[in-house]
Amino acid sequence: MSLLIVQKYGGSSVASPERIKRVAERVKRTWVKGHSLVVVVSALGDTTDELLELSKRMTRRPSRRELDMLMSTGEQISMSLLAMALHELRCDAISFTGGQVGIVTDSSYTRARILDISTHRIREELKKKKVVIVAGFQGINPQNEITTLGRGGSDLTAVALAKALRADACEIYTDVEGVFTTDPRIVKEARKIEKISYEEMLELASSGTQVMQSRSIEVAGKYGIPIHVRSSFTNHQGTWIVKEDRSMEDVLIRGVSLNKDEAKLTLSGVPNRPGVAATVFKTLAQRGINVDMIIQNIGKSTNTDISFTVPKADSDLAVRCLEKLAKRIGIKGVSQDAGIAKVSVVGIGMRSHAGVAAAMFDVLGKNKINIEMISTSEIKISCVVKKKDAEKAVRLLHRHFKLGKRK
Amino acid sequence: MSLLIVQKYGGSSVASPERIKRVAERVKRTWVKGHSLVVVVSALGDTTDELLELSKRMTRRPSRRELDMLMSTGEQISMSLLAMALHELRCDAISFTGGQVGIVTDSSYTRARILDISTHRIREELKKKKVVIVAGFQGINPQNEITTLGRGGSDLTAVALAKALRADACEIYTDVEGVFTTDPRIVKEARKIEKISYEEMLELASSGTQVMQSRSIEVAGKYGIPIHVRSSFTNHQGTWIVKEDRSMEDVLIRGVSLNKDEAKLTLSGVPNRPGVAATVFKTLAQRGINVDMIIQNIGKSTNTDISFTVPKADSDLAVRCLEKLAKRIGIKGVSQDAGIAKVSVVGIGMRSHAGVAAAMFDVLGKNKINIEMISTSEIKISCVVKKKDAEKAVRLLHRHFKLGKRK
Repeated sequence: MSLLIVQKYGGSSVASPERIKRVAERVKRTWVKGHSLVVVVSALGDTTDELLELSKRMTRRPSRRELDMLMSTGEQISMSLLAMALHELRCDAISFTGGQVGIVTDSSYTRARILDISTHRIREELKKKKVVIVAGFQGINPQNEITTLGRGGSDLTAVALAKALRADACEIYTDVEGVFTTDPRIVKEARKIEKISYEEMLELASSGTQVMQSRSIEVAGKYGIPIHVRSSFTNHQGTWIVKEDRSMEDVLIRGVSLNKDEAKLTLSGVPNRPGVAATVFKTLAQRGINVDMIIQNIGKSTNTDISFTVPKADSDLAVRCLEKLAKRIGIKGVSQDAGIAKVSVVGIGMRSHAGVAAAMFDVLGKNKINIEMISTSEIKISCVVKKKDAEKAVRLLHRHFKLGKRK
Repeated sequence: MSLLIVQKYGGSSVASPERIKRVAERVKRTWVKGHSLVVVVSALGDTTDELLELSKRMTRRPSRRELDMLMSTGEQISMSLLAMALHELRCDAISFTGGQVGIVTDSSYTRARILDISTHRIREELKKKKVVIVAGFQGINPQNEITTLGRGGSDLTAVALAKALRADACEIYTDVEGVFTTDPRIVKEARKIEKISYEEMLELASSGTQVMQSRSIEVAGKYGIPIHVRSSFTNHQGTWIVKEDRSMEDVLIRGVSLNKDEAKLTLSGVPNRPGVAATVFKTLAQRGINVDMIIQNIGKSTNTDISFTVPKADSDLAVRCLEKLAKRIGIKGVSQDAGIAKVSVVGIGMRSHAGVAAAMFDVLGKNKINIEMISTSEIKISCVVKKKDAEKAVRLLHRHFKLGKRK
């Protein structure tokens, strides 16, 4: 059966001329089977960082339009090299920039959203049995200006193309074997997950598991596009990200994730009157700082404490804003703690099985791991713990929920 | 007076982030005077070679379409960096790819010809008092495919833009102070030429003086666009390339050029019958080998000798083709001599003054420099001599025609 497959190769898969040649061999193997192939590529390994570094030598605050002009060259280099490598293998291929295949975005430079993809040019070349190579991460706005889609944007290019072309599958090639029950560097029993739902994958991504960009998982889920996350260095099956089905509910917990990239801020002596918390979080939002978990200690009479987590990179900026605000609205103290980590368990099985939260707290409590903050969703429970306890917590939970390799 | 000026900065002018910043300062100095400015940039220093090297690691014979896709990224990088550097100096600037400003070419990838330039987008930005930066060397064909203009193509971009915009001047910034009466590395008395005609510049370019691409001089001459060739490292006036005027005829010889990049091929025992020479040169033309000077020794009865020069890079290929041909049509021998050089004197004064050729032969003869081949045009005389004599010949001619620094 002839399928239409979109394959995406990330930066590590095309990090060197040798690796590009290996990608070409893999592409050719699929092509000779008679499938129609659209290949999305990221920039070569460190190119993105090198270009950013060049821009920093020009100015501390580069224009976002010019930054997109600069950054979009990375994919243009890798895609033309891949086309050449395929030609060398006598595989007919043609490369296109995002603009050339009509990936039209809005004008939010450096984080544009895809508005439309016109598949005409791609279908034309697929009909000629060519492998169509498309630059990831980039598009053009309606005024013909080059835009980029933000970090991880090549995943989004692949998923959006798969949707627009009604592809049979979307394969995301990366430097890991797939999505694991937890980080194998922390827990050696960690097992590759064969099948995971979009919702679970989204929760894992937002709680620290970095395999695919969140927005691209959202889009894939919205349109029901099956994603196959797999390694570009082996031929093993990876992890399928698919629509949830009944059988998936039998598994209580799909995975355990760990996020060490947040810091906890605490405001002490916050006046206990309406609108104060709103002012605090509005101030942070205006600076573009994302707040994750929030807890408020209630019970005291005239004032209260509020704790929340922010990305570590924004933590100093947040403290500076809040210290200014504190004087104005009468908050007594602002403190930060970078020595924390967030441990999460994720699984759609939770919906139909009670007691997961209790079990999680029990495991941590029995092992003297103090829980500083808690947040839950329908299919996720996250706890903030001391960073020194975090990996131990992951190992304990992974074992307790029996996620390890099958015996 | 507010002028419209096109400036072109070559690869050595933008070879490093520091140099780009210096170019930005120079651009700003012109901009603050109230002039309208269009800046054409080449790729950063070695980028072009590095990209070519990458392509060679993919395949020995890269597709020319994909090569253009790859090579065109070089200018996109330098132009966005220059825009950032200008922003840092509070100079409003915007960069465009060749395609974005409507530089439409034919589809001869790697050596495309410009068909049309739509100046609409550029004029729009100039009206907003912005410096418009345009990628040199590249365009798009009518099918929206990226093309490049061949070696030295950024000069052509600048001249074609100057023509399309009816610019008041076109400044070509390079790493030398202008066009010299001869190579200052050979003759230390060499003098910078203040004014030279298009015709003379073309003859100098074709006979070895590499300051500007020949095609761009042709186009400038055709439309009478004044060119100012000058250094991007100093503020000195360079050389103006302009329409010939009466005063220019007073100077007999404008410059002496030297070309060491050709080899002499000799066919001995060529059958003396019609059509043989035609077959020889058609064979070479079919392989894309340019033949420069040709001489034929006539006088012998049944066969003759033919000598001609070709670029050294093509010399081995030419010999291989001709050896095959020789057997077929009865040529006795094919030999090559890479130990030659071409010395030329150029000047429109020759048109109205007789005796230049005689003087040249006399100077060489008196100094025991043997002339192997001669070719002339209305304003140029070229002699092929032994390579070991070439620099001496240049020095003698430079002195004889009094081209040195004024006393």
